[in-house]
Amino acid sequence: MCQLLGMNCNVPTDICFSFEGFSRRGGETDEHKDGWGISFFEGKGCRTFMDINPSAESVISDLVRHYPIASLNVIAHIRKASVGKIALENTHPFVRELWGEYWVFAHNGDLENFHPQLSGCYLPVGDTDSELAFCSILQALQCGVTEKPDLERIYALLLLQAERISNHGIFNCLISNGEFMFAHCSSDLYYLIRSHPFSKAQLKDLDMTVDFRSVTTPDDRVAVIATQPLTVNEEWTRFAAGQCCLFSQGRILADNAAL
Amino acid sequence: MCQLLGMNCNVPTDICFSFEGFSRRGGETDEHKDGWGISFFEGKGCRTFMDINPSAESVISDLVRHYPIASLNVIAHIRKASVGKIALENTHPFVRELWGEYWVFAHNGDLENFHPQLSGCYLPVGDTDSELAFCSILQALQCGVTEKPDLERIYALLLLQAERISNHGIFNCLISNGEFMFAHCSSDLYYLIRSHPFSKAQLKDLDMTVDFRSVTTPDDRVAVIATQPLTVNEEWTRFAAGQCCLFSQGRILADNAAL
Repeated sequence: MCQLLGMNCNVPTDICFSFEGFSRRGGETDEHKDGWGISFFEGKGCRTFMDINPSAESVISDLVRHYPIASLNVIAHIRKASVGKIALENTHPFVRELWGEYWVFAHNGDLENFHPQLSGCYLPVGDTDSELAFCSILQALQCGVTEKPDLERIYALLLLQAERISNHGIFNCLISNGEFMFAHCSSDLYYLIRSHPFSKAQLKDLDMTVDFRSVTTPDDRVAVIATQPLTVNEEWTRFAAGQCCLFSQGRILADNAAL
Repeated sequence: MCQLLGMNCNVPTDICFSFEGFSRRGGETDEHKDGWGISFFEGKGCRTFMDINPSAESVISDLVRHYPIASLNVIAHIRKASVGKIALENTHPFVRELWGEYWVFAHNGDLENFHPQLSGCYLPVGDTDSELAFCSILQALQCGVTEKPDLERIYALLLLQAERISNHGIFNCLISNGEFMFAHCSSDLYYLIRSHPFSKAQLKDLDMTVDFRSVTTPDDRVAVIATQPLTVNEEWTRFAAGQCCLFSQGRILADNAAL
């Protein structure tokens, strides 16, 4: 299995602190050492850093840990290979363009008997069930509508797709188009929203603390989503199985558990 | 205008030496300081490093200069913005998936009265004429055929598209799917093929020499393509205006100037 990390904010924020802890789980404090990746949205642009080396040791993850990139939406993934060999083409996050926007996807879990019919508009490059699932989601979104629908409709479409894919196994996933962050939980996923009044946080995976009071303004809101809590002194909320949340501007905009 | 750098080899090779010189042109030895990017194919996978900071100063280009990544196909670009603001979404290379492969594209030049009709399968995220041209090329390839055709057919299709777009202005470009490198010249483009017997090369943009005899085997072949020659003591061949070459395994497989 793998681990996911997502961040959705209302002001461009760097993920260095969370990634410090998360990246240690790739070969140091945990076993997810078969590659890692992280995608940052910056405006409409998106850049991804990835490596097949363990995130705890990779030269590139070292750069990401120490080079603050301000972003409203970030998705990161550390891999423990199950389906698909250790290779760059099987490394999450996966990125495709839809409706003139980059869409980023990462998945934790395994799917069985999952053979969606793909028309050819989105095809996997590697051989993970994850990339296949992402292509089938994008195809379903694009085939449904030629122009980008409103957020409510996108959430309904994503929810439907997540439910469809979940029938085939464990499907914890994060999806972002730079505007929102969609999170679906099958088994393990937690979130935390940091907002005023901010406090200190202590990482779980290494002895590191940050005092958010010194680096925020009262209006800042940051949602962090992770397979397992990253800090020991903050209250993380566990997603229920089947729960789907749409985060925007550091708030939960839609939540099927609240319906 | 911008500058292009491409590499196509028969054994995975790092581009550190060429990128050392090339990246200095982004704000040190030349004026292309409005962002830069480089895409490496590794197997079927592809990763891109990019930044809106000048390549001569960027922390990330410093990593690329010193971290050898072995690749058969690499495309790099340094930008001097003309159409489209300085932003990540306007930074080359652009990457899309076609026929289950990543395709990478970078462009030097400006296009005028260029308004291709896009069906929606490939849409630009940023606002450069370059990304628009890339989307129109991929659409033409995909719409022509639903399954990947043979290399001869792909070359013919790319040649047709390059000629069509060149009617709108300067269109020096590099395209790769990880298997081949297609290069089209409107105005400025050079290439060089390094093969046995190898010798020493001296960069033009800084005092740095490499002796390729110590890092190669007799079977190695490396084609380097660049807007302006990168070394001072090697013989670079200038493309003619309208010339299109398809490089594979460090050789020219197809060349419309030879037809």
